[in-house]
Amino acid sequence: MSDRMKTISSAKSHGGVQGVYSHASDVCSCDMIFAVFVPPQAREKPCPVVWYLSGLTCTHANVMDKGEYRRMAAELGLIVVCPDTSPRGAGIPDEKDNWQFGGGAGFYLDATQEPYARNYRMYSYVTEELPALIAREFPADMTRQAIFGHSMGGHGALTIALKNPGRFKSCSAFAPIVQPSTAGWSRPAFEKYLGADETSWRPYDTTLLIEDGHRFPEFFVDQGTSDGFLNDGLKPWLLEAACAKAGIALTLRMQDGYDHSYFFISTFMDDHLRWHAQRLSDLKA
Amino acid sequence: MSDRMKTISSAKSHGGVQGVYSHASDVCSCDMIFAVFVPPQAREKPCPVVWYLSGLTCTHANVMDKGEYRRMAAELGLIVVCPDTSPRGAGIPDEKDNWQFGGGAGFYLDATQEPYARNYRMYSYVTEELPALIAREFPADMTRQAIFGHSMGGHGALTIALKNPGRFKSCSAFAPIVQPSTAGWSRPAFEKYLGADETSWRPYDTTLLIEDGHRFPEFFVDQGTSDGFLNDGLKPWLLEAACAKAGIALTLRMQDGYDHSYFFISTFMDDHLRWHAQRLSDLKA
Repeated sequence: MSDRMKTISSAKSHGGVQGVYSHASDVCSCDMIFAVFVPPQAREKPCPVVWYLSGLTCTHANVMDKGEYRRMAAELGLIVVCPDTSPRGAGIPDEKDNWQFGGGAGFYLDATQEPYARNYRMYSYVTEELPALIAREFPADMTRQAIFGHSMGGHGALTIALKNPGRFKSCSAFAPIVQPSTAGWSRPAFEKYLGADETSWRPYDTTLLIEDGHRFPEFFVDQGTSDGFLNDGLKPWLLEAACAKAGIALTLRMQDGYDHSYFFISTFMDDHLRWHAQRLSDLKA
Repeated sequence: MSDRMKTISSAKSHGGVQGVYSHASDVCSCDMIFAVFVPPQAREKPCPVVWYLSGLTCTHANVMDKGEYRRMAAELGLIVVCPDTSPRGAGIPDEKDNWQFGGGAGFYLDATQEPYARNYRMYSYVTEELPALIAREFPADMTRQAIFGHSMGGHGALTIALKNPGRFKSCSAFAPIVQPSTAGWSRPAFEKYLGADETSWRPYDTTLLIEDGHRFPEFFVDQGTSDGFLNDGLKPWLLEAACAKAGIALTLRMQDGYDHSYFFISTFMDDHLRWHAQRLSDLKA
């Protein structure tokens, strides 16, 4: 391993290895932590990489602890990378006091406004710096990547896939924020990170990216009907309308009685990993 | 539900319901919290009950979050009950400062020494009060019960099964403490809870219970070879010797490279639930 990456912990699980690592991030100007599961198949040959982006308030650890992805990832031979959701310790105002801004709320965008622009660059971190580190340090086949996420991380997955359609074979989401530029829990953060001119928000809004001509072949989305944020911050019908208009194939499953928690995510984790595996060539699912 | 039980949280998961509940425990003289997963089959008819006892430092929540038992429990139609590991808030000396005593370290015994005897009665709590509550409040078939656990909870499962062989159809454990009366991490607690006369410890020690004539038909144990406590507090060969001498069928699997964590437990959770389901009649596994 390079001088730049440190192993915080490593444990055998489901025949593979679940590790937690840190490195000095140039992009975020701070140390960043992330989790990687390497399946047993990686001892034989490089494996495809599935990116899981987490939601508001989460670190790398929430999905690692509660997401229940290792059994199926080991079966399918998938590396699963779980980044943090923001820089940490930047010392900006509001960093720790507001669950919808700052720590745990990076929104997978590159801030342009001071004092956030130096650290809050999760878009570049997740699409450039961390992939380069993964390619260098892990037995990863970077020609085969998929991306998914939950809530704010669903927003991250959808927007990143739309802007990098050649890189990802597939994209899915659990209860994604599909229109953050209008949702109550993201508008204030977008204004602070990106400024008052809302045209600068469009590259970080799934429905507006589609409106502006970005395309991805197909999306797979699960949404609980008992999710307390359904009618407020999530509104999956906005994604449905945008995809219908643009001719993007959307598989939207409204899951009866499920909420916004990891109890919901873990229930459908197998389905999402199979979806990705089927689209990452050379994999049976 | 009765006046005595309150629902703290409830979420749909894997088609069933994962709930967290509290009640005023007469046995422990404090409010106690526990988790119950009810599988979808319970809408049709009462389901068998599998008890999971957790290890040192844990609450009901650790296995609920990290144990990955719901998928298989839902498939097999098993209710999974996860009690806390001690009374809480008793205000005894050392309650919060010592991870091997007091809070999180009830050792599934009934303390006889003051000031612990009033609250620290986890044996009676787990074998009498909580089962009565489960029978009353949940769609449980109490004629079909199984028990398992991890580390201190493996000790709990083994000792409780040996003392109540008619009640449980099966018993298994992950990395159990098999001889707590000699292990460094449990001797000080046993002395405080039960006094210096070690004959009073024998009913709470698996190997000594077997030596004293208690029997259970068969045990299933998984133990990681990279478990940091293997040669110190765990020593599964002591159980192996006791079972061999007593003619108890022991399936002991030494799992190469696994540690003492939930990454280990969750890897083999399916195997344990299948083991129990096969022994709980009317269940396919």
